[in-house]
Amino acid sequence: MSTPDSLLKLAAVLESRKGGDPAASYVARLFSKGDDAILKKIGEEATEVVMAAKDTRHGGDASKLVGEVADLWFHSLVLLAHFDLGPADVIAELERREGLSGLEEKARRTQ
Amino acid sequence: MSTPDSLLKLAAVLESRKGGDPAASYVARLFSKGDDAILKKIGEEATEVVMAAKDTRHGGDASKLVGEVADLWFHSLVLLAHFDLGPADVIAELERREGLSGLEEKARRTQ
Amino acid sequence: MSTPDSLLKLAAVLESRKGGDPAASYVARLFSKGDDAILKKIGEEATEVVMAAKDTRHGGDASKLVGEVADLWFHSLVLLAHFDLGPADVIAELERREGLSGLEEKARRTQ
Amino acid sequence: MSTPDSLLKLAAVLESRKGGDPAASYVARLFSKGDDAILKKIGEEATEVVMAAKDTRHGGDASKLVGEVADLWFHSLVLLAHFDLGPADVIAELERREGLSGLEEKARRTQ
Repeated sequence: MSTPDSLLKLAAVLESRKGGDPAASYVARLFSKGDDAILKKIGEEATEVVMAAKDTRHGGDASKLVGEVADLWFHSLVLLAHFDLGPADVIAELERREGLSGLEEKARRTQ
Repeated sequence: MSTPDSLLKLAAVLESRKGGDPAASYVARLFSKGDDAILKKIGEEATEVVMAAKDTRHGGDASKLVGEVADLWFHSLVLLAHFDLGPADVIAELERREGLSGLEEKARRTQ
Repeated sequence: MSTPDSLLKLAAVLESRKGGDPAASYVARLFSKGDDAILKKIGEEATEVVMAAKDTRHGGDASKLVGEVADLWFHSLVLLAHFDLGPADVIAELERREGLSGLEEKARRTQ
Repeated sequence: MSTPDSLLKLAAVLESRKGGDPAASYVARLFSKGDDAILKKIGEEATEVVMAAKDTRHGGDASKLVGEVADLWFHSLVLLAHFDLGPADVIAELERREGLSGLEEKARRTQ
């Protein structure tokens, strides 16, 4: 399994849905509705992640939690695409922080 | 840049923070506080994504949005790690859906 | 205008919708779907409050914000009713805190 | 207990905190930080309502849920005050809808 290829491929599919027929594709429909529709989904999916985590904690199926995080990431990618951004931007930011944190840690160890 | 390696490496770092000194690491502190502290962060970071997207729409800097999505994904990874899950589970789920969707699309085209 | 009567009357209406025909009433439908449907609405409406506040800040109509807070409070009342609680419980809690805060303030002034 | 007086009195207290010493009052501190700090609290408190409802459903104490809804309403009032609005605006909107809904219901019954 190649993680990055998956996210980049998914981002490419999302990009291709811009301006597409709202009747034929869920993502084209979201894009045509605009930012507010996408942002409502972010709030909704984050809430569902919280609910699934609570259910998992109380004995529920962890695969439900995975599905909800997937929904949240998926709609994050739709939001990024809407602003002409993509997963590579987010990964680069996480790497940058990890790099800074690595430097901090190194600095701490050498004190 | 290698996307998957980044997420897997980050997940490994998070895993290594479990049981670590809460005073020395933000992530060790989150783990020691437990699910509720992590879930509050999910709600908070999702809200900040929505706020940053609104600011971007109204002329603000898009890099703020990237940073907030990175925060949201980071805390999603902390939540997954807390339940002994990781980014590979989420990516696999997204791939599974993409596969299903690809099949659907193919079926539609051959009709 | 009598505020409390409004909230108590609204709570009574919600109570009367329990077990009602899901096809005839939005609230009866929410109750029949159960907690998770109500909780999703809480997350969604809170997100819409945040979005409306951002729009108001950027020059939008403040009445939109009032409408979204009304939606959020309305669904809070549905949630409370679902757990056999009501606005009087929330008001009593706010009064209790205000009382405590008043005491604190008095204590501070007499120091 | 007089519900409306409580909300109006609380709104008056919040109003009086505007421009107050951030070091002396939690609400004055929120106001001085501005909209974004208040909006983060809305997102955070809504998440805590969802968490408390889940815990109540799984056997937890319902008073926790009341406390979290009180927090959510409290911060809604802070947000409204920040935009020179108040609980009376929200109650009026809920009454307006109830009135419309009452009219609808009457219309339906007379058909």
